[in-house]
Amino acid sequence: MKLTILFGGASFEHEISIVSAITLKEKLSNFDLTFIFCDSDHTFYLVEPSKMKAITFSKGEHKKMAQLSLTQGGFMQKSLFSKTAYTNVVLNLIHGGDGEDGTISSLLDFYAIKYIGPRTDASVFSFDKVYTKYLCDAIGVKSVPYEVLKKSEQKDITIGYPVIVKPSRLGSSIGVSIVKDESEMDYALDTAFEFDDTVLVEPFLEGVKEYNLAGYKSGDEIKFSIVEEPHKEEFLDFEKKYMDFSRSEQVLKAEIPEDLVLKLQTNFKKVYDGLFEGALIRCDFFVHNDEVLLNEINPIPGSMANYLFEDFATAIEELSGSLPQKKMISASYEYIHSISKAKGK
Amino acid sequence: MKLTILFGGASFEHEISIVSAITLKEKLSNFDLTFIFCDSDHTFYLVEPSKMKAITFSKGEHKKMAQLSLTQGGFMQKSLFSKTAYTNVVLNLIHGGDGEDGTISSLLDFYAIKYIGPRTDASVFSFDKVYTKYLCDAIGVKSVPYEVLKKSEQKDITIGYPVIVKPSRLGSSIGVSIVKDESEMDYALDTAFEFDDTVLVEPFLEGVKEYNLAGYKSGDEIKFSIVEEPHKEEFLDFEKKYMDFSRSEQVLKAEIPEDLVLKLQTNFKKVYDGLFEGALIRCDFFVHNDEVLLNEINPIPGSMANYLFEDFATAIEELSGSLPQKKMISASYEYIHSISKAKGK
Repeated sequence: MKLTILFGGASFEHEISIVSAITLKEKLSNFDLTFIFCDSDHTFYLVEPSKMKAITFSKGEHKKMAQLSLTQGGFMQKSLFSKTAYTNVVLNLIHGGDGEDGTISSLLDFYAIKYIGPRTDASVFSFDKVYTKYLCDAIGVKSVPYEVLKKSEQKDITIGYPVIVKPSRLGSSIGVSIVKDESEMDYALDTAFEFDDTVLVEPFLEGVKEYNLAGYKSGDEIKFSIVEEPHKEEFLDFEKKYMDFSRSEQVLKAEIPEDLVLKLQTNFKKVYDGLFEGALIRCDFFVHNDEVLLNEINPIPGSMANYLFEDFATAIEELSGSLPQKKMISASYEYIHSISKAKGK
Repeated sequence: MKLTILFGGASFEHEISIVSAITLKEKLSNFDLTFIFCDSDHTFYLVEPSKMKAITFSKGEHKKMAQLSLTQGGFMQKSLFSKTAYTNVVLNLIHGGDGEDGTISSLLDFYAIKYIGPRTDASVFSFDKVYTKYLCDAIGVKSVPYEVLKKSEQKDITIGYPVIVKPSRLGSSIGVSIVKDESEMDYALDTAFEFDDTVLVEPFLEGVKEYNLAGYKSGDEIKFSIVEEPHKEEFLDFEKKYMDFSRSEQVLKAEIPEDLVLKLQTNFKKVYDGLFEGALIRCDFFVHNDEVLLNEINPIPGSMANYLFEDFATAIEELSGSLPQKKMISASYEYIHSISKAKGK
């Protein structure tokens, strides 16, 4: 099938988006792929598949490629004598800011371009970790207790150490610290506040098990990936996670009882239904004292969590056939007509 | 000051946006105004101020005007021999879909255009009435109890009649019904489900008082409007509300005790802080059994609630000087460089 992969973006995860795109080129080698790069200055470039290498972008070679602009129904390449429109379904692979904060989804909706990825409301609830907590509380999904700190106010936390400190709106572990005691707190907060004015503090749970589950909706049915128990070091730093975005080999199923799998799937479904339609997402769960807690929603997971699916290409094909599209509402002017009539002018 | 008014949009409130824009032309007559119309097919047109009349649009005369496109920093008018950029601060006056659902804010953010109006996250929390409930619960602002019904599922409500039935994502009373008993429910649901797949049901509170309060942030301070007790008929239908969007005369302060004004302001501040910066919003409150309940957030109120401000022009000027802007994050490629080095290529 034909598919456009949109990657890059003005975000701290710009580079891992490039890595993700390169990985998908390999994983979807039987697709007819178009690559559109969103540079960090928000210019769109058409990238030849043969140029899909990290050094193309780090050397700035993309700047010599054809520029594209947005137009109703697709991306347009204009030259003096011709116009070419790229109207395939787009896979939004811009991780972090732009891609996951609702900006790119809004752009694609506005220009009536069909896309795989979270819609704008789903983006807002998953991009900001505080809003993910709001969502969990509202839909009855348990998560780790939390406190919110603002850059502008001095406030002591009431959660006992050790704690984990996270900028509210960044993924990929950027700016995140584990704080063992109060003496380390100032440094951790300074680091987190470099990236965001709002910071989330959670207890660092000892002995927690971590499980990742991905899925998407095809028709009315959620198709789940296998459950993975990710390699657990104390904590993944950005560079390790970066390598993680280039994963393409299928991983082994976590060896857990079937009823835990069902519990994870039930929680995933609560999060997904009515909000994430159109997206393939990965939910990262904790299991602590026999309770399932949602840790994070990745609405555009690294390399689309391809390594969790037995048949990733089919997953993308099925999802492409189940995309919601924003209704266009045309103006009838019936009120203006009736009021003009009433006013006699 | 110079200001661009952006109005229209593909929404059920397209026409009232036109009425709002015409009203602001009058209220901001000492401004140097530019008018940009977003047609319901998402084409942008530059409208001469002298053409700012309802019939211009209902007769389709705007289609002969200059088309604009989005570009970094502003709206661009291109002709064969020249380019003109419109780079003023934009007042997003697109009510309802597009303007209030996060689409237009994302577009303006992406193209680095400064604007008055709710950011994308604020839009999501105010446009969808269910998400407004999530917000209220999370920040400790009381609101009317509610149940959610989905088009796809059969479910009985547990709230006693009379109830009020609202499509989750429409403003201006479109599709809203008061249901006195069960016999009227099917019709009310059919009407509401015409506009949205999700419907909110709330008890219809008898003897409720209604108060509207608008405000915006200038620097660190919220500037409040007067409190209005709106004319209360049982319920404003769309046509009445439509006329409401052309209001330009200052209204009288509600005659209420100072401590109630303070309570309303405290609730307003809880809603606004950290979410609505950059917007002038109107919160519509109920007072029921001495409790203040948030009924609705209007992040782009009709004619910008000009009639609630003693000096509306100054309000807009102050707000223009206090606009947040999305940080652009440039790519350093340091990870790609370090990984390329480690791989020796």
